[in-house]
Amino acid sequence: MPELRKDPVLGRWIIIAKERGKRPTDFIINEPPTKGGFCPLCPGNEKTTPAEVLGYGTPGRLANTPGWTLRVVPNKYPALIIEGDLNKEGEGLYDKMNGIGAHEVLIDTPNHDETFSRLPFERMKDVFLAFRDRLVDLSRDERFKYVMIFKNHGRAAGASLEHSHSQLVALPILPRMIVSELAGSLSYYKYKERCVYCDIIRQEIKQQTRIVCENDHFIVITPWAPRSPFEMWVLPKHHSSSYITQSDEQFQALTRIFAEAMYRLESCIPNVPYNFVLHGAPLRSEPMRHYHWHFEIMPKLTNIAGFEWGSGFYINPTPPEDAAKFLRKVSVT
Amino acid sequence: MPELRKDPVLGRWIIIAKERGKRPTDFIINEPPTKGGFCPLCPGNEKTTPAEVLGYGTPGRLANTPGWTLRVVPNKYPALIIEGDLNKEGEGLYDKMNGIGAHEVLIDTPNHDETFSRLPFERMKDVFLAFRDRLVDLSRDERFKYVMIFKNHGRAAGASLEHSHSQLVALPILPRMIVSELAGSLSYYKYKERCVYCDIIRQEIKQQTRIVCENDHFIVITPWAPRSPFEMWVLPKHHSSSYITQSDEQFQALTRIFAEAMYRLESCIPNVPYNFVLHGAPLRSEPMRHYHWHFEIMPKLTNIAGFEWGSGFYINPTPPEDAAKFLRKVSVT
Repeated sequence: MPELRKDPVLGRWIIIAKERGKRPTDFIINEPPTKGGFCPLCPGNEKTTPAEVLGYGTPGRLANTPGWTLRVVPNKYPALIIEGDLNKEGEGLYDKMNGIGAHEVLIDTPNHDETFSRLPFERMKDVFLAFRDRLVDLSRDERFKYVMIFKNHGRAAGASLEHSHSQLVALPILPRMIVSELAGSLSYYKYKERCVYCDIIRQEIKQQTRIVCENDHFIVITPWAPRSPFEMWVLPKHHSSSYITQSDEQFQALTRIFAEAMYRLESCIPNVPYNFVLHGAPLRSEPMRHYHWHFEIMPKLTNIAGFEWGSGFYINPTPPEDAAKFLRKVSVT
Repeated sequence: MPELRKDPVLGRWIIIAKERGKRPTDFIINEPPTKGGFCPLCPGNEKTTPAEVLGYGTPGRLANTPGWTLRVVPNKYPALIIEGDLNKEGEGLYDKMNGIGAHEVLIDTPNHDETFSRLPFERMKDVFLAFRDRLVDLSRDERFKYVMIFKNHGRAAGASLEHSHSQLVALPILPRMIVSELAGSLSYYKYKERCVYCDIIRQEIKQQTRIVCENDHFIVITPWAPRSPFEMWVLPKHHSSSYITQSDEQFQALTRIFAEAMYRLESCIPNVPYNFVLHGAPLRSEPMRHYHWHFEIMPKLTNIAGFEWGSGFYINPTPPEDAAKFLRKVSVT
């Protein structure tokens, strides 16, 4: 059983995935990227993954058979497991609970060499719809408070399989990042009675220096204080704390703007490794006036020191205004 | 002039090092590690670095000439610059100030191929003494509130030069990590009237499951909720919030225990890339009953996803009890 443990000073929760049970010899330094070989995410290999929890594809297709265009399966080596109770307990001054949760893999495409950013429009939209469908389903489990949805693209960004996929981790606790965002935006709201993200959007539209692209429903900016060069945030223009309540028109607009932002980024920095993370309200929460859902896209560039990720202290060599200028210059047809 | 910018939601400060002015083409993906070639940190090349601010070596040696065993020089490409005023100002809802600070490189050794962990006893002790000497000197500048002291060892951990060195960054703000530690430990102290780190040490000595090694003055543990496999904390056994007030006996004991911990780690995982960071009280602060200085040593292992560093959500495949067991098993003569 994996274990969730809380740092007694910072209140930061960590998952101890005992089942992975890494011994010193399991850490191979400078491991070369594996190319080719057997891919468990490819069509025809459906039986090698745990049974799918969601599949889009040809009508009438049987689950766990080819013919799909998108598939969500539980992670074969989950960081958290779905069965059991939390059993919160202390051990002296330390706190822990069982590592209950869900860990799923969303296979973006049946084509091994197709990357997320180059998916055809309808199939990229399906990825965003599948995020919603899984959020709705997982929110029915009262043990879960939050679902982290993210993609690691490229080995430098932590992807361990070549085949394009995203991940969903349902958690019995709120991750630190969301706790901090909720607290920061609430404190702003209490003082100003306005959403800080709505104010950010207003200021960005006024200043016109950090906008990457926009459409009727979404705006993509390089944030004022970015952790990494070419970091981008994708924000809905109309206030909403919840990803799942979007209309079909909004999902269309999201897909269009996301594809455009990724095209601009990859035109500037070919083969860029990146992570993106969906930031949304906790599961089953009422609409929040102070919180505003969004995506954060973080390129992972080789010269960012490991130290910076660990200490919360970032040095960024590219001003976001410069990054936005380069990104805007890319011609999009 | 570099710029410090504050995230309006999280309050997190970022350094925008404009002078480094990285353009998209400056980010080479999968850059191979450079080996050999000219080394600005080697003896004989003293004139290629900015003039030294501290040097240990043969008595009577002239500054910026060979004969040194340890040298501290300003970083040639500093993230922050020493001259000027902070000029705190707003830009709409955003906050910024000039990137005033000091960025120094501590050259651990004159020998290009000698790593920190294998330094002879007296010379490793010199590194710890030099940290103190620079802290004392930099604390005289009232503009600085904190000095981050850290080492990146190995390219995966962010080292851009082969030659063993540490870095010091004097900041006009408190880094987020320290703000959180001060807040967390103060809140514990208010409730218990005890230092949380002292309580951690007491519990670790009682449980005997996460101790790596100890001597009269220091204890090395794998922390209860570690972010990375084989993470280690080096804590003074007697309560103190300040690194600089240590006695010579304590510096000796620190050197011995640090060398032993690193020997154990590198015996378990040869060539492990790692970061270590000194966590201490803000400059010029009165002794604090609630805060306890320490070192955190974080191995950077290839399979940790970039995503985790960015989101504050960590998955660790090695329980700290297992890591401590492996580390204790190493025989030390």
